Formats: sequence, C-alpha cells, structure tokens
Amino acid sequence: MAALTTVERLDEGAVLTLRWADGSAGRFHAIWLRDNALDPATRSPENGQRLITLQDIPAETRVAAAALRDGALEVRFAPEEKSVRFPADWLRAHLYDRAGPGERGWTAPETETWDGGLDADALTDRFDAVKSDSSALRRWLGHLRRFGFARLTGGPVESGALLEVAALFGYVRETNYGKWFEVRTEVNPSNLAYTGLGLQAHTDNPYRDPAPTLQILYCLENSAEGGENQVVDGFRAARRLWHEDPRGFDLLADHCARFRYQGGGEVNLSTRRPMIELRPDGELIAVRFNNRSAAPITDVPFDDMAAYYAAYRRLGEIVDEPAMAVGFKLAPGECFMVDNARVLHGRSGYAAAGGSRWLQGCYPDKDGLLSTLAVLESEEGSSP
Amino acid sequence: MAALTTVERLDEGAVLTLRWADGSAGRFHAIWLRDNALDPATRSPENGQRLITLQDIPAETRVAAAALRDGALEVRFAPEEKSVRFPADWLRAHLYDRAGPGERGWTAPETETWDGGLDADALTDRFDAVKSDSSALRRWLGHLRRFGFARLTGGPVESGALLEVAALFGYVRETNYGKWFEVRTEVNPSNLAYTGLGLQAHTDNPYRDPAPTLQILYCLENSAEGGENQVVDGFRAARRLWHEDPRGFDLLADHCARFRYQGGGEVNLSTRRPMIELRPDGELIAVRFNNRSAAPITDVPFDDMAAYYAAYRRLGEIVDEPAMAVGFKLAPGECFMVDNARVLHGRSGYAAAGGSRWLQGCYPDKDGLLSTLAVLESEEGSSP
Repeated sequence: MAALTTVERLDEGAVLTLRWADGSAGRFHAIWLRDNALDPATRSPENGQRLITLQDIPAETRVAAAALRDGALEVRFAPEEKSVRFPADWLRAHLYDRAGPGERGWTAPETETWDGGLDADALTDRFDAVKSDSSALRRWLGHLRRFGFARLTGGPVESGALLEVAALFGYVRETNYGKWFEVRTEVNPSNLAYTGLGLQAHTDNPYRDPAPTLQILYCLENSAEGGENQVVDGFRAARRLWHEDPRGFDLLADHCARFRYQGGGEVNLSTRRPMIELRPDGELIAVRFNNRSAAPITDVPFDDMAAYYAAYRRLGEIVDEPAMAVGFKLAPGECFMVDNARVLHGRSGYAAAGGSRWLQGCYPDKDGLLSTLAVLESEEGSSP
Repeated sequence: MAALTTVERLDEGAVLTLRWADGSAGRFHAIWLRDNALDPATRSPENGQRLITLQDIPAETRVAAAALRDGALEVRFAPEEKSVRFPADWLRAHLYDRAGPGERGWTAPETETWDGGLDADALTDRFDAVKSDSSALRRWLGHLRRFGFARLTGGPVESGALLEVAALFGYVRETNYGKWFEVRTEVNPSNLAYTGLGLQAHTDNPYRDPAPTLQILYCLENSAEGGENQVVDGFRAARRLWHEDPRGFDLLADHCARFRYQGGGEVNLSTRRPMIELRPDGELIAVRFNNRSAAPITDVPFDDMAAYYAAYRRLGEIVDEPAMAVGFKLAPGECFMVDNARVLHGRSGYAAAGGSRWLQGCYPDKDGLLSTLAVLESEEGSSP
C-alpha cells in the first residue's frame, strides 16, 4: 500500500489535506477524523463498536497538530487535547474527497449484469462440494453476489433439504407461507404458483415489506412435461430501459407502484414501493416486477401515467425477450437460488396429468449470505 | 358512498372523466382501467391475482364506449371489444388524478408522532387480554401502527415467552443472534448491549439489510439498580430537524451513511443506507440511528460533510432531549415492542452487582403485523 507523504492543516485545523506516494490525495474534516478515531476509548477493542456519541465530541473540534510518523498520521485534537493515530491504509480506504457516482441506475462494482448468454453451468456447483469445502462455498456464494443467481446439483431428494442449503450461509425468513412452501399443483390454489400455469418472470412477494431478498427453489419431482424454469437479470433489464428511455426509467424509479396479496382470509399484505429502487445516490438496488400481485397504481400523477405505463410495458417486453432468459429444467435434488431484489424467475406451464412436479421454496436473507462470504474471503486472505 | 353522476370520453377514448354526486371528480386512462379490470379473465376470482401481463393488453387500448348503469361504470375497450364493469366505490378509492404529496418528510396518515408526553399506559395491554380477545389484539396492534410502540404486562416469566407475543401477529426473523437473544451482562461481550453500560437511544441493527422492522424486548429479571428503558419517536425527531433545518434534513436523507458489525469472527455485516429514508415521493419511512455501529461515512461529498455532521449532531441532540423520551422500568413478565424503522430505544446503565437484569429480544417483521391487523379490521368491519 502507498505511504503517506505529506499532511497539511487547512482552515485553522478544521481540515487536513493528505497526500500519498502514488499521487492520490484528499481532504478530511477534523470532526470526521475525531468521530472515527480508532483508539480504545472511542472504539471497543473487543467488538469494534463505538463507545461514545457524537455529542460527546465538542462541535468546535479542530486539529491542533498533525504529523506523519512511521507511515501513519498522528493527530492531536483540540479542545480535547486527545492524540489519535490513523494508519495510512485505513485513511486511503476511507477517502471521501472524491468524485461522486455517475448516472442514475449505476450498479455496484461487485455486480455484473447478464442476459441469456450467461453460462449457467459455470455458476453450478455440487451440493457435497459446497457443504464440505469452504473455498467451493465461497465461490458459489460469490456467484450469487456477482450474478444474483447460482445453482446446485446432487443434493438430497428429501423434503426440507432446501433448509440445508440455506444453513450453508444464513437464515431463512419465515412468512405466512411457512418456513418453506410447496410449489405444486393444488386443488384450490391460494396462489397461481400452485397451479400448472406458466408464470411470467417475476420477483417474489413484492407485496411484502421488506420483500424477500433471496429465494431458493429446490426440486423434488419433475417428470411432468414442461415446467422449465427461466431466470432474467432484472438489473440488465432496468439498465436497458435506462439506455433506451431514461425518462421512462426515472418514472419507474421516482413513483411508487403498489402490490397486494390477500390469501385465505388470513393474510392481507400490501406495499407501496417503486418497481425500480435506487439509493439516494442513484445506485440501482432493487427491481420489483410481478404482474400477478401488482395492485392499482395510484401514486403516479395523472399527467405522467401514460408515459409511466409505456415504460412499465417496455420493461415487461425486455423481461419477456427470449434472449434475456436463461432456461433450464431442474432434476430432483437440484436447486437454484436468486437474489430476489434483482433476478426474476419464471416457469413455463406444465401438464399435471403426464407426470409430477414438486418444488420447495424458501426465503433466506441476503445480508447473512454477504456476511458469510465476507468472513470466508477474509479467512482466505489471511491464510498462509 | 357517493354515486357516479357522469362519465365523459376524452382524447378519442384514451381517457375518461368521472364525477361523483359529492362533487369529487377525476380522470382515468383507458390503459389503467383495462390493466385493473376486475373481470374473472383478468383477475382470478379465487385469489385475486392478475392472470394476464401488461403485454397481453394492446398498447393502443381505448375506451370505445362508456356508460353508467346501476351506479357502476361500464366500459367497452377497443380493440379487444371487451366489456368490464367497475363499481363506483372502487373507482373512487383508486382516484389518482389528485394533488401530489406535500413537503418532503411527510408521514402516513395512520401514524401519529409523539414526544415524552405520550401516555404509555394507554398503549399498554394485558398479555391474557390480547391473547384471548381479538378486539384487544386489534387495539394493541393498532398502537404499534400508529405510535410505533406498545407494551404488554402480565405475561409468563419464562424463557422464550417473547415468542408467544410474536406469534400473536406474525413471524420472527432469525439472525446471527438466533431466533431470540439474551440481553444481560456477559463476561466477554460481543456487543455493548450485553454489558451494564447505558445505551443511547438507537434503532437496532442498521448494519443489517433489511434492518429488523420490529423488536420485542421482554423482561425476565430486573432487580438491578438502573436499567430503565427509554423510547424516542425517531419520526418526531426527524420532523423536528426538518422544521429547524430543512437542508440538514435533506443531507441526512440524500446521502448514505454506513453501518457495520463484526462479531466473533463469524459475522461481518455492513450496509450503505441513509439515516433518514424517504420514499421517492418524500414519505418518511425509516430512521437509522446507532452510534455504536455507525461506520465511517464516505458517501457524502467533501463540500457537504461539515453540514452533514452538523445535521447528524443536531438529530442526536434532539434524540437525547429528556423531553423527547418516554421512560419506564420493565418488571418480569412485561415487554415492549417498537417499530425499529421508527422508534429508538435506549437504556440507562445498571450495576450488575446489586441485582440482576435479564431481557430477551427478538425481531418479528412488521408486514406480518400489518397483515394481521388488516384482517382483524376487516373482520370487525364485517361483523353484525
């Protein structure tokens, strides 16, 4: 890592300018440095949590003195007369004096969008491998983070086996559908998923808030004709809409849709969320797309509604393009997992008469997956 | 409900204007009406889900003819030549030709913000009552929706009893802390919550994404001196900031903070979310405030950082004002629940030596609560 070369006090110590040997540079505010001090009175050495509140730090905090020593920055803060040391690497990793994000709808660097040309086999691992080998697990979870999609083969053909997959990395969120749910034809289906109908590619449960962040669909029987699965990258679809029609993209991001599900007299879930969700700085973080549970949209101004509907239609057309979809038919003991805030899944219709089709589904949460992946990556990085 | 009085076709049938007997009026687009048609070929009569996609509806859809009959609107759509009936009440409830929302940071009509003057006893029910009486349960859940806070007394003094509370309305989200977690002094605490330290009012786990939406804290022992709980309405605090300093409010809403928790070598959770979260139309929907897990903020432009920190400090000062807090000491068998996207909770420090303090906590999800409440309310509405 690059060494610090100079430090300069500006504005009577309200700001420091730092420069590194590789030419990078940036300013830091005294109050920011003090709030993020790494000393044991500020941060618990045991668990890293901050021990003080911002109000414990004087509002008029300034840098009284700053120097470089042994590659680190040493700062004395006034009026506390407190000295704190900041490693050069830590400061470099937390530079905030930099260019802001680009155009709306940018995606995080750790993601990579795709279309039907995605090599799904390259994102497929063996159940035994990810269960017994932490580097295989790390790779498999990495597919999910990068592509929002991954598959497993060779798992047990047993009811509930999908929970073993979830337990590899995290925790399943129980809902009104249970800890997991059965996806097969029912006589009086409470949900169209429980029929033989084809389903347009969709994200699950946009009527839930928070919506499920991951879904595992695990196959136990699949001898019926039809019933292939398709997955579509909703981020790619949204980015394509942005390129074609930035105003249409903005309409879907800047107004809430509504979603609703009422089932069996015991469930009445409804949400008000946009179809395309951005962070405040424009990062694309979620797509909600589900024709079955889309409720009447009443939060779009009258004058924008026609253009909103045109954009909604265009997004659906992109989603439905065969070239956008990766298709496959699961065999018993196989499963796939999607990032349900990003990757849409659908299925072709199937005839219940000619055989059977039985999947089980569950909703683990992605934060647990990303946490496990971060831990595996840091272990990897620190291994000899 | 008001009857429809007139219908008028505009723009060659692309739009209808409707008027009701009470003077209300509004325009509807033909494509919107067609997409939301209530006939059994569009919506499943069994489960209410939409059976078609937007692409199944011609883009050039127009209203070929419209008339009022028996208080309902009857529409014939071209080119499908499809006739659909819309009840007057349904149309009135879904009017979208109306004024948009007000200033940024508005709150939903079903919420009511509060300060330390809140009568917490009025939001307190008996465990037995809410368990056995659906109208008591409806009232208690209604407190949570309106105030983001409610209490129960007289529950069992048994480990795990908090799950009985959650089961009254929904589902607990399991996390790395387990299905529930113990809040008591530990020898090697992985989290400052597991010490006798006082804790500034905060929302839990902002380093999780999605963050917990509800929290139950259930008391099993509380003979130690100190250890009172405080709750603060984060929506009131944010609204106060908006009134004092709208630009500061905007800074906290328009830039992401970062939160992080690393525990025990097995957990590494981090998020990038704003401290004040708004829907695209400015509705205030979440506050994230937690000094312990706030990570270095690196997504605020350098030129805004000083003002951002000033707003962050001011929000903390408001949160810390004694007049903002409702305080109470839980007795064994008592619990409280907060909307963790809204209401902050804290505690005063306590001495482990003079007695014991043992709470258990868990994170149910609010969508399940709102669903149960909606079902109870519709049963109430339909009862004789």
